[in-house]
Amino acid sequence: MVRTETGGEGSDRDHVQSLERGLALLLAFDAEHPDPTLAELAQLTGYSRPAVRRFLITLERLGYVTAHGGRWSLTPRVLLIGQHYTESHALIAVAQPHLLAIAEQTGESSSLAVLDGGEVAYVARVPVRRIMSINVQVGTRVPAHATSMGRVLLAWAPADVVDDVLTRYPPRALTSQTTTDPVALRDALHEVRAQGYAVVSGELEPGLLSGAVPVRDRSGTVVAALASSTSSGRASEQVMRLETVPLLLRAADRISTELGFRSPVRRSTAYEGFY
Amino acid sequence: MVRTETGGEGSDRDHVQSLERGLALLLAFDAEHPDPTLAELAQLTGYSRPAVRRFLITLERLGYVTAHGGRWSLTPRVLLIGQHYTESHALIAVAQPHLLAIAEQTGESSSLAVLDGGEVAYVARVPVRRIMSINVQVGTRVPAHATSMGRVLLAWAPADVVDDVLTRYPPRALTSQTTTDPVALRDALHEVRAQGYAVVSGELEPGLLSGAVPVRDRSGTVVAALASSTSSGRASEQVMRLETVPLLLRAADRISTELGFRSPVRRSTAYEGFY
Repeated sequence: MVRTETGGEGSDRDHVQSLERGLALLLAFDAEHPDPTLAELAQLTGYSRPAVRRFLITLERLGYVTAHGGRWSLTPRVLLIGQHYTESHALIAVAQPHLLAIAEQTGESSSLAVLDGGEVAYVARVPVRRIMSINVQVGTRVPAHATSMGRVLLAWAPADVVDDVLTRYPPRALTSQTTTDPVALRDALHEVRAQGYAVVSGELEPGLLSGAVPVRDRSGTVVAALASSTSSGRASEQVMRLETVPLLLRAADRISTELGFRSPVRRSTAYEGFY
Repeated sequence: MVRTETGGEGSDRDHVQSLERGLALLLAFDAEHPDPTLAELAQLTGYSRPAVRRFLITLERLGYVTAHGGRWSLTPRVLLIGQHYTESHALIAVAQPHLLAIAEQTGESSSLAVLDGGEVAYVARVPVRRIMSINVQVGTRVPAHATSMGRVLLAWAPADVVDDVLTRYPPRALTSQTTTDPVALRDALHEVRAQGYAVVSGELEPGLLSGAVPVRDRSGTVVAALASSTSSGRASEQVMRLETVPLLLRAADRISTELGFRSPVRRSTAYEGFY
């Protein structure tokens, strides 16, 4: 099917194909293809060489890509796009000092993440040590079902969102510990709602232990998960529940309050000693 | 001037206008305009409402923007684009554990930055505390002339790049301490080359003290600056030069070695005790 910018049928007439293709071209650069040639990009994207050439010329003029001896690479200007996401979400600026405080007090990495489809995307992070096999950065995505942040975000998501995620992204086993049975997962989400936090151990990677709590916006909607992660060799689940989770709850309360949420229950007093 | 995707004159015929406009639309979202309406986006970008509508519909289908009651906002999917920059630059993955080690040993934030025009862009960062008035994130940009990272990157840049930067982005005074005289700035760059590092105090913001050193790729080209920053209330310039800079030099040596660079001078021995 050929779609053009001015023609097409039905809803396709509003689809700007060259914008879609240009963005897809930017995403063709990755760890396996850090500096592809024009021909490689054509192969990776399935677009014609003349089309790839026009996109590259445009992106080069705009400063998003650069060429060295027939090979193309992304410039730091592409980081601006993500930077605008960060700038336009007050949540992230509000959470940043709390993430730093949590990392300082626990000596472990702290993170803020949001749900996007069946994955959670890290939107802010204070790394302390590397405990995951992947190098977690802002923008990194992990499967929601196997992480404490994902459990929190799914626990407070509307029922249709949870149904949709479980249907479209059936839970995969990532370790021998991963909960993949939809019924068991729904039970786990119920438990998270009941206790107000999630602790997940070894379901994303063996030895990875994390705790997460919900962050609410002014309307009370859960918009993010605040998490701390460590290795099960460094801390027990009990330490996570009794020491780290109260810290996270207190920080999430403060972030939510700064976002304009007035909690009906004053949780703060109970944890005053911790934070 | 109207440029189309299929027509136009000279080099403009290769310019994909709708890709440029779609990217400009993504950048229209920021701290001042976190959730603009279609009309506001048309005003911000100068594009017609029907054009903005088509771009929004396309970006919404691709999952980059979302609408709530007539207001539009960026989704975490836009972070993927920056994530692909990070993934496709081995330098960043190689530097990450060293940034963590520096932050741990100094108790201060560490950063990796690259030059882009007259600015340096943070491409990796381990935040420890917030000492700058801006919230520094990956993607944040600061003027090159007033920062230790920028001085390092300009010191080892080809002469024509330095000329270009100084001509196109004349050094502005950001504090009463900022070096703005091009001759004085060139002298400072010469000194940086001679001593092998840069220390800058209070030129970007009052009280901000930072040190930076060059990171080389396998060809020996300086591709990034590695930096540590603190406040002049917490550390003196002397501590920065005698304690932090040696740590940075050692880490940069290791990063450069991991990138395949074989230093002609074995610096490592001199600093073995520090890192």
